[in-house]
Formats: sequence, C-alpha cells, structure tokens
Amino acid sequence: MNVSYRPIGVIRTPHHSPETTPIQPVYAQDYEGQVEVFPEFEDGLKDIEGFSHIYLIYHLHRAEPPRLIVKPFLQDVERGIFATRAPCRPNPIGLSIVHLVRREGGVLHVRGVDILDGTPLLDIKPYTTRFDCIQTLRNGWQDDVDDATAEQRGRRKKMEGARETSE
Amino acid sequence: MNVSYRPIGVIRTPHHSPETTPIQPVYAQDYEGQVEVFPEFEDGLKDIEGFSHIYLIYHLHRAEPPRLIVKPFLQDVERGIFATRAPCRPNPIGLSIVHLVRREGGVLHVRGVDILDGTPLLDIKPYTTRFDCIQTLRNGWQDDVDDATAEQRGRRKKMEGARETSE
Repeated sequence: MNVSYRPIGVIRTPHHSPETTPIQPVYAQDYEGQVEVFPEFEDGLKDIEGFSHIYLIYHLHRAEPPRLIVKPFLQDVERGIFATRAPCRPNPIGLSIVHLVRREGGVLHVRGVDILDGTPLLDIKPYTTRFDCIQTLRNGWQDDVDDATAEQRGRRKKMEGARETSE
Repeated sequence: MNVSYRPIGVIRTPHHSPETTPIQPVYAQDYEGQVEVFPEFEDGLKDIEGFSHIYLIYHLHRAEPPRLIVKPFLQDVERGIFATRAPCRPNPIGLSIVHLVRREGGVLHVRGVDILDGTPLLDIKPYTTRFDCIQTLRNGWQDDVDDATAEQRGRRKKMEGARETSE
C-alpha cells in the first residue's frame, strides 16, 4: 500500500533553521542554492537549461509530525492542512518553483530557495507558462491576506524595534 | 535512505488507458473526476473549497520503468526526463493543477483531470496566484512547439481520416 521513493539528489541552501526559512520562493528571491543531482541521474538533466523556472519536489525531512488542522504562516486562523502549504502534512512532500540560473553538469544553480539545507530531492519538472500559470477565480483564505502582511510574514525576518509597528 | 509515503486517498477519473489520457489538465478540460480522500484525513480538507484550483500530487502507479532520455508527448526529439513531464521518471510522482468544482465531505469534484482512474493520492496543496503563477523567461524546447500542435498531441485524441492532415 505504501509507496517508496529514492532521493535523486540533495538541495544545498543557506537555510539551516526552519524558523528563519522563507515560506515560499516568492519571498526568497535573495537566496541562491545548488541542486546536486546524483551522477547516475545526471543524463536526465539534458535540455533543462532551456527553462527559466523549474519545479523542485522534495522530502520535507525536518517537518514536524502531521497535523490536520494548522495555523498557516500567513494568518492566525486555523485551517485544514490541505488548504495550506505548511510542512507538517500527512506525506511531507515539498514543492517549490525556483529560477534556474545555470547548470554545471549535475549541479543546478537556482534562485528563490525556500528550502532547508540538506533536503532530499525527489523530482524535477520544467515549469511552463502553457501548463502551469493559471488564472484562478478564488484564492481561498489567502485573498484575505494583504500583500504587505504576506511579504513580511513570508520572508520570516523579524522586524527590529520601532520599525516593526510601522511596516 | 528511501522515503515512504502512504496514500491519503484515490483519484477517480474517466481515463482507463494511458494511451488516450490527456497529458496535462490544460488539455483535459472536458473531463471531470472525483478525489476521494480517506475518512481519517477528511478534517485536513477544511477551507479548501475557497480555492478555485488545487495541486494534486500523486503516485503514477502505471508508469513504465524509468528512462533518463525520452521523447516527450509534444515533440519527436529526445530530451532529458527532468526537462519533460513524462511519467517514466526515477520517482514516478505526478503533479496536476485541477479546477475544484465543489466539495462533498471527503470527496472533491474536480475538472481537468489528466490522471488515470484509481491513481493513489499523496498530497493536496492550494494553488494561488501569489505563489504559483510565474512569468517565465524561457520555456525550453516547449517554446518550439506551436499551440495547435501542442493541443492536438496533448489531448491524445486521434484525428480521423482526411481531417488528420488538415489539422
């Protein structure tokens, strides 16, 4: 009944603590990382450098035990886990759309990493406008979170002293 | 070293043969399906009905054995598997963005299913414009495939007789 996957590589990033890791690539544009694909899978990277953006699918190896109801990072209201991107999911699978800066053999240099250092990589897929850029009708509870709040909370950077109340 | 996941549900669709299954939701807008989430995970669906689109992450249970070089559905040129969305991946993980039509308890009625009937579900995530609709700079080899060709090949419907050459 269970399915079993073998990591195809490892993701190197500047993020070592979950508490200070940005919650999504859109809030992590200042951070670069390296996706190290194991040599036996390197041939599968052929032509990937043509894409400016790729999906990384990975195992959230430091996620807390699963909970079905959580408060998401962006809002202090309890939501169902599947209506959030929180890591403590029944199957801790992570999904990030990152900018592919360049490829060096089996190493992909990427920008916009919201991923902890040492994360096991499961799959890479190309992101294409044709398949993946959808005009939604509704974005659920996220429509109630304004952009400034989302950005402040999403970056996970503590504001200092007096600035905190003004931003 | 391996990671192990337990399905959280099963996906019901009209597609029973890989050869006639559309290759992406954008070419499957005529098809509806039901995502049956197992009762023990149903509480995690709270608030999901607020989102018009969701990601389904699933196990490609009928994928052929992995190959690192493949000809993608849309083009007769060999590409690295990670530069395509072909199912015969080292870890056969599928990703589809579907339209959430409505929820009935643990069942999600969705439109745009490009998924085989009986597929084991691993995760559900909300799709949001803020996180997921990216303006790419380049779409790799896909930029060389015109929309009409992509649509014909993506739908997987055989054209009949004389019409085949004219469309």
